[in-house]
Amino acid sequence: MIRDALLHEIAEGVLRPGDKLPTEPQLAARFGAGRHSVRRALEALAMLGKVSIEQGRGTFVEEAPRLTYAIGKRTRLRRNLLPQGCEVSGQLLSSEIVEAPAPVRRALDLPQGAMVVESHRLTLADAVPVAFGWTWHPAERFRDFATRREALGSTTETYRSYGVEDYFRHETEIHARPARPDETKMLKQHPSLPVIELHAVDVDPEGLPLSASRVIWAAGRVKFTMTGTQDD
Amino acid sequence: MIRDALLHEIAEGVLRPGDKLPTEPQLAARFGAGRHSVRRALEALAMLGKVSIEQGRGTFVEEAPRLTYAIGKRTRLRRNLLPQGCEVSGQLLSSEIVEAPAPVRRALDLPQGAMVVESHRLTLADAVPVAFGWTWHPAERFRDFATRREALGSTTETYRSYGVEDYFRHETEIHARPARPDETKMLKQHPSLPVIELHAVDVDPEGLPLSASRVIWAAGRVKFTMTGTQDD
Repeated sequence: MIRDALLHEIAEGVLRPGDKLPTEPQLAARFGAGRHSVRRALEALAMLGKVSIEQGRGTFVEEAPRLTYAIGKRTRLRRNLLPQGCEVSGQLLSSEIVEAPAPVRRALDLPQGAMVVESHRLTLADAVPVAFGWTWHPAERFRDFATRREALGSTTETYRSYGVEDYFRHETEIHARPARPDETKMLKQHPSLPVIELHAVDVDPEGLPLSASRVIWAAGRVKFTMTGTQDD
Repeated sequence: MIRDALLHEIAEGVLRPGDKLPTEPQLAARFGAGRHSVRRALEALAMLGKVSIEQGRGTFVEEAPRLTYAIGKRTRLRRNLLPQGCEVSGQLLSSEIVEAPAPVRRALDLPQGAMVVESHRLTLADAVPVAFGWTWHPAERFRDFATRREALGSTTETYRSYGVEDYFRHETEIHARPARPDETKMLKQHPSLPVIELHAVDVDPEGLPLSASRVIWAAGRVKFTMTGTQDD
């Protein structure tokens, strides 16, 4: 079958992301098939997200597989990406103590006027930016969170240094939208590709909110998975 | 800046979802700017999903808040969208019995050559398309699933008619990408807005796979939430 033969070539890397497929007449000749069968095979591949058919330009192999980021009770960036053979690194872009913006205040259950530590970070996988965002911690409890996080190199360890033995993902919200030019630049992504905006709240074992975050993911580089029957 | 002034009016509710914006000449006069700047500002707003430019009709403030679709152990489209005051309706576009494509076969744990019922559906909320997609059921167990689903009007009831008393979301995978022209057309979405592609597997109470699905959501009209500490 034409479809399976091409799928195989994509899986094997004979055809690589961005490659242009042979034209319909070329494929028809190669497989000894009619144009109609070739077109149907290409449409099936497009439906599977393996190729994109661009009117007047041709058919192209879709971008490579995305990183898989599992969202669940224990959502740990590094642990999530490491098994995929990625070297994950983070960069603290800035941190400051600010009055909690209204949505952050609500997420963290803080009184009006409460202060938070705002950390602005960039995350890279194999030196390619995959996400950037902001995390807010209540300043009263975690005044030097950003500094300690830098020194310790791990969120889990930073929480431990404050006596918080574990933390859990309470809530995650996701939507997708076109990227703004500054986001495209930060993520070094093609301007036609969207971003996924993720809002999350983490809590301690007693259910007290520890942090709120807003992260902008490069949509071309990540997919999210959730497993419904078991969280961890 | 025209764009920011209009963004502000949308945020403040001076301009509300569904409102028609003043015409380009009116905006040009109001801001003392050229038609070209006005058009650029409107296009920027459309790219952000804040307005939709409808050829020949005018520019309208987009349905601001997105629908919230909760993903968890019990993922039920209708029950998820109803509390938001939406009238949800579905349309069966086509159904046929086909050989299971490889990813479907793997998801449903079927042998090579197994047949599946493929249902192609469109989902609307308040008569606006929000998603369309394909669901595959093993044909051996659910040969007339699409027909029964049409007659009964509910997935839960259809499963019951086969003796499946309950079903659970096993796995969900989400990524975002630019919309293809046919997708934009089907969803009646602005071409600059992306789609969210969702792949899911539902299982019965014993954990046996019931269905695999691939759904294309209008990114401008939905956000997804997951609650990590409790699934249901």
